[in-house]
This record gives sequence, structure tokens and C-alpha cells, in this order.
Amino acid sequence: MERWSGLTADEMQVLETTFWSSGGSRHGVAERLGFSKSKANGLIAGLVEQGLLAEAGLQRSSGGRRAENLQLNDALGVLIGIDIGATSLDIAVLGPDLRPLAQHTEATDVRQGPGVVLARVRVLMRELLARCGHGAKQVMGIGIGVPGPVNFQIGQLVNPPLMPAWDGFSIRDALREDYTAPVFVDNDVNLMALGELWRLKRSLQNFLVIKVGTGIGCGIVVHGEVYRGAAGSAGDVGHICVDQEGPRCHCGNVGCVEVMAAGPAITRMAVQAAEAGESEMLAERLRTQGRLDAVDVGHAGRAGDAAANGIIQRAGNLLGQMLASVVNFFNPSHVFIGGGITHIGPLFLAAVRQSVYQRSLALSTRHLEIQYTPLGPQAGLIGAGALAMQETLKVRGIAP
Amino acid sequence: MERWSGLTADEMQVLETTFWSSGGSRHGVAERLGFSKSKANGLIAGLVEQGLLAEAGLQRSSGGRRAENLQLNDALGVLIGIDIGATSLDIAVLGPDLRPLAQHTEATDVRQGPGVVLARVRVLMRELLARCGHGAKQVMGIGIGVPGPVNFQIGQLVNPPLMPAWDGFSIRDALREDYTAPVFVDNDVNLMALGELWRLKRSLQNFLVIKVGTGIGCGIVVHGEVYRGAAGSAGDVGHICVDQEGPRCHCGNVGCVEVMAAGPAITRMAVQAAEAGESEMLAERLRTQGRLDAVDVGHAGRAGDAAANGIIQRAGNLLGQMLASVVNFFNPSHVFIGGGITHIGPLFLAAVRQSVYQRSLALSTRHLEIQYTPLGPQAGLIGAGALAMQETLKVRGIAP
Repeated sequence: MERWSGLTADEMQVLETTFWSSGGSRHGVAERLGFSKSKANGLIAGLVEQGLLAEAGLQRSSGGRRAENLQLNDALGVLIGIDIGATSLDIAVLGPDLRPLAQHTEATDVRQGPGVVLARVRVLMRELLARCGHGAKQVMGIGIGVPGPVNFQIGQLVNPPLMPAWDGFSIRDALREDYTAPVFVDNDVNLMALGELWRLKRSLQNFLVIKVGTGIGCGIVVHGEVYRGAAGSAGDVGHICVDQEGPRCHCGNVGCVEVMAAGPAITRMAVQAAEAGESEMLAERLRTQGRLDAVDVGHAGRAGDAAANGIIQRAGNLLGQMLASVVNFFNPSHVFIGGGITHIGPLFLAAVRQSVYQRSLALSTRHLEIQYTPLGPQAGLIGAGALAMQETLKVRGIAP
Repeated sequence: MERWSGLTADEMQVLETTFWSSGGSRHGVAERLGFSKSKANGLIAGLVEQGLLAEAGLQRSSGGRRAENLQLNDALGVLIGIDIGATSLDIAVLGPDLRPLAQHTEATDVRQGPGVVLARVRVLMRELLARCGHGAKQVMGIGIGVPGPVNFQIGQLVNPPLMPAWDGFSIRDALREDYTAPVFVDNDVNLMALGELWRLKRSLQNFLVIKVGTGIGCGIVVHGEVYRGAAGSAGDVGHICVDQEGPRCHCGNVGCVEVMAAGPAITRMAVQAAEAGESEMLAERLRTQGRLDAVDVGHAGRAGDAAANGIIQRAGNLLGQMLASVVNFFNPSHVFIGGGITHIGPLFLAAVRQSVYQRSLALSTRHLEIQYTPLGPQAGLIGAGALAMQETLKVRGIAP
């Protein structure tokens, strides 16, 4: 872990650039940093010698010559990425290039409070590290996503509506007992955005990631960086009003998109359709399972159930209505939709697109792409790993 | 004009920093650029000697010692700022520190097309330059704001709804006949945001400027820079829906905030109130003037007219409803409201605030300030001047 004490600012920049362009060439690193070839080559050779960078495999360049694939050296250690959702928990041990070495997913309920949930997280961290032959000492950095507003500087949740017991709790302190590695906490959807940004190697500058699960949130990338807002609550789009006559939300207002189009709303509409005799398929599922969720609605829809398709269309249109406002304001190049909703299938996406294209200005949508998150359910974990690596590099870079 | 050919990158940085912190000290410039005191002093001395910087007046520092007020040298030349609104035209000749040397305002109608409007602009530019003893040769740069979406790179309007005749017209070419200085074109409200950013010396990082006039637009500042979006249409908030049952807008959708709360909507509501006998005061004004506008509604409201106050409240609430969505998404520290609406008085602002605080999340509004633009009607002109100076410095910096 002390390998990188005493590195120069130039060397830290090479490490960071390599991380963000994993598998890139020496030449690419030089170009990105505006360094001469010989300067970059010198720095890279030094870092390879110190065991910080590795030249893995060979990259076939267009001219027929072969260039090395530069990446952070696996020997540096591992990262831990943790993605805590309202009802699910994902943990992974990742290499410095964010390759998952061991991974585990299970159901959880964040309302149990930080004591219960983080005790389980600590057990899983130990198990996963052991599974890939590592211990606490090999951990370079830990990144955690949580489903609520986070004060990023102090790494604490602030007034989280879905998990009030976590308000002001220090997640960092809870993990400090087992690990000396730095711990970084961010909102779950900010991390999905960071994950996609890393996957894209920063090739898109201005895009959004919308997570639709128990709640609805948005990660914002501006000028190639995650934007958190003046108080860290940017992207809190779940309580944008889409119907002045709509139902009351737990936030106190009416017609919030979250109360009308997120997972619980879809379940509620499905149960109503089943009980009202509008859908034999949903009624059958409700009888056999005792409950319904978005996945069931998606299944029924794909099997041609009209009521299910009506629900999907309605939820998609409402989400699209909210997105239209955001697209008019922000003019992103891409909107990626992730979270549990993605299991519902392509009709939902079609309904979102229809509604956005109808309500947004032509100039905002001319080149706008709306699709499901390319990283799928891994987006949050990869983002947590990217946060851990990026911030660890920054912390190390500042230290003497 | 050729004074700054051959300047080094460091020297250009000192000029730019001085422009953005006009009246700051040598020490402040050094600090902002991360230069040592001696390096900064050397650069500044050289630039003063070349006639690019001036040390004007004395700044009393807290320690009792006196430091010089650094600023760009007036001898560099002048800037021209032009703010073309849908119905008004403002032009100013400005010093390098954006002090207006000569200024003119008149009514216009952009629907007359670029030929008519720009011919008048060219006449006024000549007159104003003559009035302060300058000619075309002293003009360093020209900044123009227009009320529609602009492709900033090529300096042209793209599908402007209020001024279709300007679509794709080259404003730059129209002015190139008279001036060799570079011409920069941007959306009017982006320039208001740039103007406020300059006034603030970049001390706020994330804020919005909303212009409410014939239309409604928004300038966005992110991380201390004006944000224009993927296609240059960011901030196009006028067509965000605030009422699914609302009236039809010229964009084709219903219930856009622009068709319900901008200047023409206020006029329409005022005429209706006058004709329906709901307001003797507005009816009297309509009889004597033959027309009504937001200023009349403001006057009547301040004189205690209940119908006028109802209109102001309604327009403010609708604008606030749109802003609530934007505040939830963007979490700015400040929202500055400008444009013709500011003449309506403080009740409008109170109605906007009420609506935003009611509909936005607590975390987004805890430190949120909503006020009229501190630069008032000058915001667009100052922004046009700031654009001209900033981009001219960039262009000069790139040239050999």
C-alpha cells in the first residue's frame, strides 16, 4: 500500500489517466495528458518498474504495429464496491481495472438500519476477500452507494426518506475497524453514472442515468464529471410533479413521478388489475405467488396481456413526462435507464421515448439517445469501484 | 490590436484572470493561478510595460498596507455588447473592465428579420463609438445575445421559434464588413448568466438565471462555467409543462409554462380581468393606453388591486412550479430572475418562492436563494461584453 508514497504529480496523472482509459496505449496516455512521447515513455517505464503499471497483452493498432495495453498493476491490491439498494445488496471485490474477482448479491431491507445492514456487509466483505485469496491489507479503497441523498464530503446520508435510521450515521467509522483503506460514500445513482462514465472512458460529456426501482433518482454527468449540486441533492427527480391531481406522495406533495411510476406504483396497478378482473394472467400470478412485481407485469405484457401492457405504457409515459422537463432543461446527449425497472422489457422504454419525443423540443431530442444502462445491474458496483479507485488515487496524490 | 501577439500562455492566463477578478491585487492573481509571488510579479510587470495591464487606483488591504488594483489597460481598446431581445435592442460600448462608455436602448421587433435589425445595429454601433471618440479599429471584440437557441461554434441561430427568419443566418458575416474584430453570438439568457458570473467574480459555482419576457429561458452555470448542453439548447425551460389541461402553446404542446406565465400570458389575463369588470384600475389603464402589459399589472397590484395581485400570484406560482422541477434536478445555490417581469415588483418573487419551497425537497432548498438579477436590465449587455472579452482573449491566446 505504500508503493505510491512519494510519487510526483506527473506520475499520479499517468496512473489516473491509465485507470480511466484502461487498456489504452502509451501513446494514448501521452496524448491525453499533453505530454511528449519521450516524457510519457519515461514516466511509464518508471511506474512499470515500481510495479504500479503493467503492460498486459498487446493491442493491435490500425497501422499494423503492435502497442501495449497499459493498465494498473493487479499487484497494487483490490477494491471493494458495495451497492446498497432499498431492497438489495450487491458487493464485489474488484481488481484495479474494475474486473470483478468475487461478487455476491442478496435481498436486504435498508429500513433495518445501519447496524444490521453494515454488520452483514462486513461479513460479506471478509468472505468475498477470502474467496479470492485476499485479506484486509490488500484492500486499496472501498466505495459504497446508498439509496438516498449523501453529503459527499463527510460521507453521510442527509435526511434519507427511504432510510431515516441512517440519517447522519458514519458509514466510514463502521468500516474503519476492519480496514485501513479509505471509504467513500455516494448516492447509488451517482455511482451508476460514474460507472457508465468509466465504461465510456469519458467519451460522452453530458448524460443522465435514471434509476427506477423503489424510488426514482438521477445521476448527472456534466463536462465529463459527476455533478452533485450545491447541497449534494442534484438528481433528486423522484418528486417532480407529473400530475397536479395525482395521488399523495410520502414527501407530502401530490403527483410526484415516484409515487406514480416507480416499482411500488407498478405493483399497485398490477394488483388492482388482477383484483378487478382485468387481467387473468396477473390474477393467476397473484394467486400462486401471493404478490406481484414489475417482473410479473413485464412477463404478462410480453405474453400479450392488455392490462399489463397498459400499466407498462402508463408508467413509461409518466417517467417520460418527467424526463421531458429534464431534457428541455439539461439537453443531455444520452439518457440511460437502470434499476429494477429494466426487467420489465422494451415496451417500457418505447413508452418513455414516445413521451419524451412528444414533449421535448426538437433541438433537444434531435440527437438524444434513450436506452437501458449498458452496464445493466453491474452499473452501481462498477461505479462504486470507480469511486474507490479514483478517490484513492486523489488521496494518495495529495499525501506526501 | 497587435499588442498581444506573441504573448506566452502564462501571460494570457494573467490577462484572463485579471479580467475575471477586475480590481483584484497582484497577490490575488498569483494565488488564483498557483504562481509564486515573484513569478506573478514578473509577468505583471512585463504586461504593464507592454501596455496590456494597468494598476489603477489603490486597494486598501485589511493589514493597512496598500495594494494596487490590477485591471486590463483601457488603451487596449473597447468591446461592443449587443443584447437583442424579442422586442428590445440594447447596445453598449464597454471598456476592457466592462464599464459602459456609451449605451443605447430602443424598441425593436426581431420578426422583421436579420436584414432590418442588423442594419439598425450597425448604425447604432457607429454612432455609439463616435460618441465616445472611438472608431472601428479600436474594437477588440463584439458579443451579441439573441433570444433563441444558438449553435455557439458557428454563431448561428438554430430553429428559433420567436424569429424564424434568422434561422441559419450568419450574424458574423453581416458585421464583418465594418469590423475586423471577432464576433461571438450566444443565447440572450446564457449571456445574462455569464454577466452575473463575471459580476460575482466566479464566487458562485452552480446557479441559474431565468429570463421571463416574451418567452421564458434559463442560463445555467455549472462548476463556474456556462453550460450549453449537448446540442446548445440547454436551459430551454419555457416548454416545460405545468398543467396537462392548460392552453395550447405555439410549440404544439399544451400547458407550457411560457404560454401560461410569460409576458403575453400576463397581458392576456390582465385584459380579461379588465373586460370582465374584475378590475376598475386595469380597465381604466386599458381605456387610456389601448393596451396593457406586466408593468401595468404591477402598478395596479401595488395600488391594492385584487385582480392584478391574483394575476401576479398565478404567474409566479406557475413559474415556481416549473422551477421546482428544475431545482429538484439541478440543486443550484441561487436562482436569479431577470427580464421584463422584474418590473412587476416583489409580489411576483414571493409567489415564485412560495411555489418552489412548497414543491422542492428540503435539502435542495435549505440554502437556496431566489432573487431578481443583481445586474438588472444590464445583465445581458455585461454578459455580451464578458463574452467578447473572454473569447477574444482565447482567440488571441491561440493565435501565434
